[in-house]
Amino acid sequence: MSVITAMEILDIRFPTSRELDGSDAMNPDPDYSAAYLILRTDAEDGHEGHGFVFTIGRGNEVETAAIAALREHLLGRDAEELLADMGAAWKLLAHDSQLRWLGPEKGVMHMAIGAVVNALWDLKAKRAGLPLWELLASMSPEEIVSLVDFRYLSDALTPEDALGILRAAEPGRTARRTELLAEGYPGYTTTPGWLGYSDSKLSRLAKEAVAEGFTQIKLKVGASLEDDIRRIRTAREAVGPDVRIAVDANQRWDVQEAIEWMRHLAPYDVAWIEEPTSPDDILGHAAIARGVAPIPVATGEHVQNRVVFKQMLQAGSLQVLQLDAARVAGVNENIAILLLAAKFGVRVCPHAGGVGLCEAVQHLSMFDFVAVSGTMEDRMIEFVDHLHEHFVTPVDVHSGAYWPPSAPGAGNEMLAASLADYRYPDGPVWAAEANTAAASTAAVES
Amino acid sequence: MSVITAMEILDIRFPTSRELDGSDAMNPDPDYSAAYLILRTDAEDGHEGHGFVFTIGRGNEVETAAIAALREHLLGRDAEELLADMGAAWKLLAHDSQLRWLGPEKGVMHMAIGAVVNALWDLKAKRAGLPLWELLASMSPEEIVSLVDFRYLSDALTPEDALGILRAAEPGRTARRTELLAEGYPGYTTTPGWLGYSDSKLSRLAKEAVAEGFTQIKLKVGASLEDDIRRIRTAREAVGPDVRIAVDANQRWDVQEAIEWMRHLAPYDVAWIEEPTSPDDILGHAAIARGVAPIPVATGEHVQNRVVFKQMLQAGSLQVLQLDAARVAGVNENIAILLLAAKFGVRVCPHAGGVGLCEAVQHLSMFDFVAVSGTMEDRMIEFVDHLHEHFVTPVDVHSGAYWPPSAPGAGNEMLAASLADYRYPDGPVWAAEANTAAASTAAVES
Repeated sequence: MSVITAMEILDIRFPTSRELDGSDAMNPDPDYSAAYLILRTDAEDGHEGHGFVFTIGRGNEVETAAIAALREHLLGRDAEELLADMGAAWKLLAHDSQLRWLGPEKGVMHMAIGAVVNALWDLKAKRAGLPLWELLASMSPEEIVSLVDFRYLSDALTPEDALGILRAAEPGRTARRTELLAEGYPGYTTTPGWLGYSDSKLSRLAKEAVAEGFTQIKLKVGASLEDDIRRIRTAREAVGPDVRIAVDANQRWDVQEAIEWMRHLAPYDVAWIEEPTSPDDILGHAAIARGVAPIPVATGEHVQNRVVFKQMLQAGSLQVLQLDAARVAGVNENIAILLLAAKFGVRVCPHAGGVGLCEAVQHLSMFDFVAVSGTMEDRMIEFVDHLHEHFVTPVDVHSGAYWPPSAPGAGNEMLAASLADYRYPDGPVWAAEANTAAASTAAVES
Repeated sequence: MSVITAMEILDIRFPTSRELDGSDAMNPDPDYSAAYLILRTDAEDGHEGHGFVFTIGRGNEVETAAIAALREHLLGRDAEELLADMGAAWKLLAHDSQLRWLGPEKGVMHMAIGAVVNALWDLKAKRAGLPLWELLASMSPEEIVSLVDFRYLSDALTPEDALGILRAAEPGRTARRTELLAEGYPGYTTTPGWLGYSDSKLSRLAKEAVAEGFTQIKLKVGASLEDDIRRIRTAREAVGPDVRIAVDANQRWDVQEAIEWMRHLAPYDVAWIEEPTSPDDILGHAAIARGVAPIPVATGEHVQNRVVFKQMLQAGSLQVLQLDAARVAGVNENIAILLLAAKFGVRVCPHAGGVGLCEAVQHLSMFDFVAVSGTMEDRMIEFVDHLHEHFVTPVDVHSGAYWPPSAPGAGNEMLAASLADYRYPDGPVWAAEANTAAASTAAVES
């Protein structure tokens, strides 16, 4: 037996707003951040479990407080017992009756539970000596079903449905694992398309993306129709007719506005329209999907939990499901979402980027290919070439694909040096910024 | 000009779990709590703005952290300017692009914004020398419309729709104000029905409720069908055929389960079924509403924002809308919700109880009667007789009705002595508890 002895919780922020990396119509100046958790045990193996919530700056400290609120469920607890039944571990956290009031199952508290769940999976995978995708893909259909909380899902997906999906995929697991290792998992890139970039930078980066082997890029839209038309024309000219261009409005529009705006962009052959409106608007997305067809609607990075995804699938609100590694309550809930997507026959193209989201979410797509949906057809993982250098096992993306990680763990672990340097507000990067600001204030005043 | 000089933020908790007050199928042991905010300015009038988020214990400190994250928007700001345009004040807080990532518009961060917005309204009403309901009911239709953020609503409610509703109600305002002062606003009581109470306590409290003039009571259900049947039979025998009995499952069921369970309770003449399933399940509630008709479905205390209420109205998910003073982003968003309900012709019966929710929410129903829907027909405000003694202006509920408050403010202000006594974990009530626990541990060990 080993016991969970410590939860170290860190407020890590990267000053990305200085370069307008990550700028879009709703998020003009994000500082990519992580409310970061390290779980430690007294086991002799010395393995730690790492997990995080991704945020875009202010409020990262609220997430660290939310992670800390889960301490009493974990400290002093038998790690083997927790890791042996991860379905029970999930419920221990998500069903806390008092904390549930703060959601339920949404927002700050739910994402904090996700960080803890993902840290437990990181620890479990390290102990197993496997990357998370392989660990999950080595579990039996019954074991996988036991990870999922079917509460509120049974009108769309029962445990028997899930078992059927997983059993149907079981015979092909070995062949698909081989295929995945040989061919990678397709990626697409958002790097060219941030709203803060000039047309010439957009054009140059779009061409570079194609040269790097990507077959789809994505543009941020929604701030100005005139600009959007010019930018998508620029991008289309840069990449030619055979590369797909998706657009992403980051929740900027109301229903009718989305339909009308897209009418102007449709002539440039749009691969999908992403987050056209509020991520809570299931019926609104369904109306937009009908209004912009045949352009598919994509959403998910802000979809709060499996209950909303269930309804979006029931209502035809989305044709591309973009799960996120750090929005819902971790790996377990994302498995529920993968099973829902498989049940409804909808493709999954995860949201990534930010900091660490690419490293984490690739495991889910690869597990899905091997053991759930069994297909990569029309599926891609988003890729943004930011901040990977801070991770112990950064993604390996080349030739337009994600290449399966082989290091044990869930991919969440940042370098110790990065954790020290970017700690907010006292790490050297931020302390230096505070000094510079103080100096320039002093200069103005003198 | 006066400036906001301080935001005092307090973690206030009442040890209600000791008596099983507030126990239901999902919340067996709540400690009613408030993440409490006091706004101060340098104005000579000395008025403070008070607001809070209601929680049920653990995690209350996460809400205080979330309120603190809003400090930089308020401290040092011109109070007159903020209070003069409360629509702009709402957007200042709710549209913060970085904090928005933590929701958007849901959960911990959204409720924290609600506390700040409600504290600003409390300050504004005190400065005006009016109770909040009268302040709101004295504003012109145009001023009221300017308080609402119509983003994501325009497919169901436009500013023009809202203006039409408010203008139609304008001529009758004076007569309805007189009616309200003379007759009060109907209430119903949940005091008899907590799940932790014995049958004899339930029966006694139900009879007392009828004697006190209430025409509706509510029972918690959902833990055991056998118990529920016995308890509703007990309650029906206690109150006779003419008093309405609503039941509340506190999100316990899946869709089909809700429909089947209610089949067994229907013979006892159920006034409504409240929170049958996940508050996120718009389509699930709609299916339940079809399945249990003609019993109305009620929900709202956990409905995260106006976008979800909009859809519930569009889909026919609810027939009784139970807005809550401290779940969404404060008075402004609740006005949007009142306007949506009026547009769809659905009755509003607010959720209350907890701590301070009755004091706060009565203002919204009274404003709605005078200036929005113009009707009290089949409408009631929930009443639970708990913890009112901690408020500066506790509700006046008698003869089965809420009687309009006349004190200036929004009703949110707790007594200074209560704030001191129940501060967690260092107030005397909790410090004593910690000492008792330490003493009994020592006794066991010795």
